[in-house]
Amino acid sequence: MATNVRALLFDVFGTLVDWRKGVARESERLLGSLGYKLDWLAFADAWRGEYQSGMEEVRSGRIPFSKLDIIHRHNLNRILPRFELTGIAESTLSDLNLAWHRLDAWADVMEGLLKLKKKFLLAPVSNGNISLMVNLARRNGFPWDAILGAEIAGDYKPKPIVYLKSCEAFDLAPNQCMMIAAHSNDLGSAAACGLRTGHVARPDEAGPGKGERAPKIRVDVAVSSLNDLAEKMGA
Amino acid sequence: MATNVRALLFDVFGTLVDWRKGVARESERLLGSLGYKLDWLAFADAWRGEYQSGMEEVRSGRIPFSKLDIIHRHNLNRILPRFELTGIAESTLSDLNLAWHRLDAWADVMEGLLKLKKKFLLAPVSNGNISLMVNLARRNGFPWDAILGAEIAGDYKPKPIVYLKSCEAFDLAPNQCMMIAAHSNDLGSAAACGLRTGHVARPDEAGPGKGERAPKIRVDVAVSSLNDLAEKMGA
Repeated sequence: MATNVRALLFDVFGTLVDWRKGVARESERLLGSLGYKLDWLAFADAWRGEYQSGMEEVRSGRIPFSKLDIIHRHNLNRILPRFELTGIAESTLSDLNLAWHRLDAWADVMEGLLKLKKKFLLAPVSNGNISLMVNLARRNGFPWDAILGAEIAGDYKPKPIVYLKSCEAFDLAPNQCMMIAAHSNDLGSAAACGLRTGHVARPDEAGPGKGERAPKIRVDVAVSSLNDLAEKMGA
Repeated sequence: MATNVRALLFDVFGTLVDWRKGVARESERLLGSLGYKLDWLAFADAWRGEYQSGMEEVRSGRIPFSKLDIIHRHNLNRILPRFELTGIAESTLSDLNLAWHRLDAWADVMEGLLKLKKKFLLAPVSNGNISLMVNLARRNGFPWDAILGAEIAGDYKPKPIVYLKSCEAFDLAPNQCMMIAAHSNDLGSAAACGLRTGHVARPDEAGPGKGERAPKIRVDVAVSSLNDLAEKMGA
């Protein structure tokens, strides 16, 4: 199974890092200290809820490529009124927008990545921008060989160019690369480009029971953790 | 001096790795074993001698952006007849072209980079392609935060876009970034874009005495090694 795989390409939000608790924690830290009281997890969910439509503006060609930080900021502005958050200083909002740079990895990630690094090239293929990926890597110790993904492709997943440019950056054919994600739609798009696919179960990603317990499509490998992935990939 | 610098951007060929001895060694390993006898250092010099004119095709817009690997291969084809190298198998030439992926760092580099990593974001801003940079990093242990440079900019140094895209990838202003190189022309071009500059002396880069012992222009820092750079930058 997938014996010619040379590189593992990782989705990041949800697959490697817990965006929900991280964004809730950062929002509470920055806004709670100003006296605001709200359901911080619901705030994180609402912010993430705008994610796809923000990127769709770029994918459809209606606006030129903008880093995910810009899209996150635009989405933040959209949800503020819904939570009656008004009159917040620009500097606070800019800092809050960096909540996405300060997320923590799921507990199994680092040990698994370090094992996998001995056998495979490793890179994020995320919709997050390079600086966001760099800050998550510094915070969590992700041992990337390169930062690939949306910013080097100039477009957003699930557009084929993002997967294909990432394989090409490593000088590898698509079938020498395996996309690793907790989301079947990401994996389905990668498979359509010829990549191998590995599904990581994150059953509580968007709240208790609100994540994929198992892949919804046929994948090459389905695992419960990155340690499990390392074992199944012989690393 | 340069107290707001957050990232160090490194030239690689000559500044961090010894291209001359590495290319000579790899050429001898691959062609010498076939019975060819030649001055391997002169062969490396000739190959490197085609470097700028190859990239100039891209910089001028005469051809679309091509990875440095492609340009190296084109340049190899140009010099083969000069050394009476004919009838060599395509697979050998492809492997020989990867000599540039198998270069060793100067002795001071790793210790210096590990110190600098504690204080600064670090990235190569080289004309080498991503896979080439990844292979050099794997071989030598370079602790990059990201692989920036020509391939993400779609053009070659000293075009301003290469420096500016690299700063922007880190979300930094040019004056928060310092270009580190053994070549005054690279540093002059970076300075013209607003970056800070650090010169590393590599007096024997292109052969004994054939390298810059000191910068030919005003720079922010001039050092004799990356350890010296770490010390001068307070890392």
